[in-house]
Amino acid sequence: MVELSKHAVQNAIGVLRQIMPGQVETGMAMREQHANTITFLPNQPPDAVVFARSTADVVEVVRVAREHRVPVIAFGAGSSLEGHVNAPFGGISLDLSRMTAILAVNHGDLDATVEAGVTRVQLNTHLRDMGLFFPVDPGAEHATLGGMAATRASGTNAVRYGTMRENVVSVTAVMANGTIVKTGGRARKSAAGYDLTRLLVGSEGTLGIITELTLRLYGIPERIVAAVVPFGALAGAASATIEAIQIGLGLARIELLDPLQIRAVNLHSKLSLAEAPTLFVEFHGSGTGVAEQVEAFRSIAEANGAQGFEAAEAEEERRRLWKARHDAYWATKSAWPGRKTLATDVCVPISKLAACIAETEDDIRRLGLVCPIVGHVGDGNFHATPVVDTDDAREMAALDEMLRRLAERAIAMDGTCTGEHGIGQGKITYLEKEAGVGGIAAMRAIKAALDPDGILNPGKILA
Amino acid sequence: MVELSKHAVQNAIGVLRQIMPGQVETGMAMREQHANTITFLPNQPPDAVVFARSTADVVEVVRVAREHRVPVIAFGAGSSLEGHVNAPFGGISLDLSRMTAILAVNHGDLDATVEAGVTRVQLNTHLRDMGLFFPVDPGAEHATLGGMAATRASGTNAVRYGTMRENVVSVTAVMANGTIVKTGGRARKSAAGYDLTRLLVGSEGTLGIITELTLRLYGIPERIVAAVVPFGALAGAASATIEAIQIGLGLARIELLDPLQIRAVNLHSKLSLAEAPTLFVEFHGSGTGVAEQVEAFRSIAEANGAQGFEAAEAEEERRRLWKARHDAYWATKSAWPGRKTLATDVCVPISKLAACIAETEDDIRRLGLVCPIVGHVGDGNFHATPVVDTDDAREMAALDEMLRRLAERAIAMDGTCTGEHGIGQGKITYLEKEAGVGGIAAMRAIKAALDPDGILNPGKILA
Repeated sequence: MVELSKHAVQNAIGVLRQIMPGQVETGMAMREQHANTITFLPNQPPDAVVFARSTADVVEVVRVAREHRVPVIAFGAGSSLEGHVNAPFGGISLDLSRMTAILAVNHGDLDATVEAGVTRVQLNTHLRDMGLFFPVDPGAEHATLGGMAATRASGTNAVRYGTMRENVVSVTAVMANGTIVKTGGRARKSAAGYDLTRLLVGSEGTLGIITELTLRLYGIPERIVAAVVPFGALAGAASATIEAIQIGLGLARIELLDPLQIRAVNLHSKLSLAEAPTLFVEFHGSGTGVAEQVEAFRSIAEANGAQGFEAAEAEEERRRLWKARHDAYWATKSAWPGRKTLATDVCVPISKLAACIAETEDDIRRLGLVCPIVGHVGDGNFHATPVVDTDDAREMAALDEMLRRLAERAIAMDGTCTGEHGIGQGKITYLEKEAGVGGIAAMRAIKAALDPDGILNPGKILA
Repeated sequence: MVELSKHAVQNAIGVLRQIMPGQVETGMAMREQHANTITFLPNQPPDAVVFARSTADVVEVVRVAREHRVPVIAFGAGSSLEGHVNAPFGGISLDLSRMTAILAVNHGDLDATVEAGVTRVQLNTHLRDMGLFFPVDPGAEHATLGGMAATRASGTNAVRYGTMRENVVSVTAVMANGTIVKTGGRARKSAAGYDLTRLLVGSEGTLGIITELTLRLYGIPERIVAAVVPFGALAGAASATIEAIQIGLGLARIELLDPLQIRAVNLHSKLSLAEAPTLFVEFHGSGTGVAEQVEAFRSIAEANGAQGFEAAEAEEERRRLWKARHDAYWATKSAWPGRKTLATDVCVPISKLAACIAETEDDIRRLGLVCPIVGHVGDGNFHATPVVDTDDAREMAALDEMLRRLAERAIAMDGTCTGEHGIGQGKITYLEKEAGVGGIAAMRAIKAALDPDGILNPGKILA
């Protein structure tokens, strides 16, 4: 079977070399770079990397792959965290990062249509002079918008602007049978049939390959104010967040760093923040609207035990104030040299957030792990980033226990095992718990219906 | 085949009478009341009506229907507009309107979980004392939330709060194979597998029967101001809308009535509004935030040829001001006695809205039709409500031409043949044009995968 598949894939690569000369690479470095490298999951390289230049190229690759029954793994920036781009069964990594055309910006309709390989930074650079921006901001700056759609990415702005689920208007996708599907136009609402847009968003390249997408844009706010607010206790930070959301304050960002994360950032970025649970907040709006928000949030924070409230408006000052948040991931990576970092995430109803974090911290202590916590707390979404010695079997076993208990805790709290990182290879067992037998059966039926040969990113989402 | 099916359905009804005594009705009046009565589509009554009291009842009905290969048509309030609840192949109308439990309101998380038969008015009455509300408001006040989810309903608040697509957090649904699927918990974000929630929302009971749903709630705004603004020309009203959306004014509602609609309302409600294209606007927010919005909108309106600007804040005054909008549908029904009214809708990018309405009005004039227009213009969504003599063959042919050209025009403008009414039976041919061969094939594959026997609401969405 494996032999057969090796023949098939070599035949497919041969055909692709002929019809797409110069776009096929098989060097090991290139192949490994296209498999998972960020988490602890083993690197499972594809047999070849094909660089698509157009939707027509994607159709050709899918056609050849289908004829030869060879897996096709769509690849954007390779910044996913759960092994989404690994090739456990070999096959072709279809790299869309060279499809970088911004096809249209409709200023009047606040939308843009782009090819899948356009990065969020490229789009925002293009939009800046028009006074517009695209808000979804996962940690990876060079994440491609196609990849972000495929993984239902979000980030710090989701509490106000939503995730890719809310901000993708429609997509063009190549399906496993080689047809091109355009899931909609540019209307803001539609009641026309099954929501294929939302089905493809978050399907991790297992149901179709997104080649173009139309996105919602927003006007750059008239005024932006940032604030940093340390609290005496986690519970206070959490309840301040809940109250602010409840009164509809319209916060653009509200991020929590736990004391260990603050310590890492102080070390890495030479800051001297108090090692306390700290909220990093951003307010967007009109002149007086923002002033109102800041004052309302200040009084909520004070009533919940805030131990300070530093605000800034000028862009440079805001950047300085938020530096700790921006540097969190790299600070964690560098603060414990020689160790490796894994980023996981869960999401719970915000009323459960404080309990979920507190119980997770109990686990971390009990298991003797080092694990800073950063949260998009306005959404009830947080990241635990354990820092471990991957050669220490005891520590790795402790890590497994912590991760399992975290995912199960989130599900038990009416939440989800992943708010934004996705399932990939890493969370398949948790998805089974979360979706239940009926949910998994429905997902399997949809997968079998749209990709009967199982060529699209096999081994992801569903076992 | 039809004979066989008649035997099968009578057998199924017999079984259901035994296992659900008192919940099965077969009187013709009840059956006709459960088929389409609002549009011109013929009334196609089911063979029986079964009143479900629980998700377990729904499982039983689906199980019996599957065993006997009998259609099951989920029924809420029967206020859909495209024949969604008709029974073209007979079968069982499964009425969920007696499932009226509000299962939970989580004030801290701004969500509620309800049974499918809870109406939007019932939910909002329940929430009022908590300072919360659910914003989606289709024309039918007694629409059930399950039906609203199944049809991806929206209404006047969608421009600010979104439609059922954005406001359903998760659902519990009974699938065609009798399994119960819970599509998610209460987390605001999730990247966990295929988005079954959004797939079921808008599937019109053809993929699963929604029995419970969790909804997003919002705090009742601190301050609400309403305004009515007549314009010299349609283009001015449209460009004022576009500018307000573009600068992110955050309007809660922005509705357009055309001069004919105003005339009908003046007659019906004894008002004396100028017969001009008129915007009905509502602003939600904090004290100063609303004041800012009103002033910003007033200057945008004036720059675009507004011929007045009447604003009101007290609830009674707001209601008086908006009376014309609230009465629009019934005014149209009563202004031309002896004629019948049909409500259709399309949605286009807002930059195309003025052109789409103007070209539609040209058709209306050319074809000699009477047809007021009302629009949720902030979304680019509008309703044309032709008033016709259904016995006049020439007029009915003209109506057909107008409706066909309207749907095709919206699709050609990068919009959709329906922003909120759905496909049902009435728009199947337009969906085929809009989704294209690949899109329809994908929808068919999903339908066949999740409902292989075709028992769930057959003859809707897909031919």
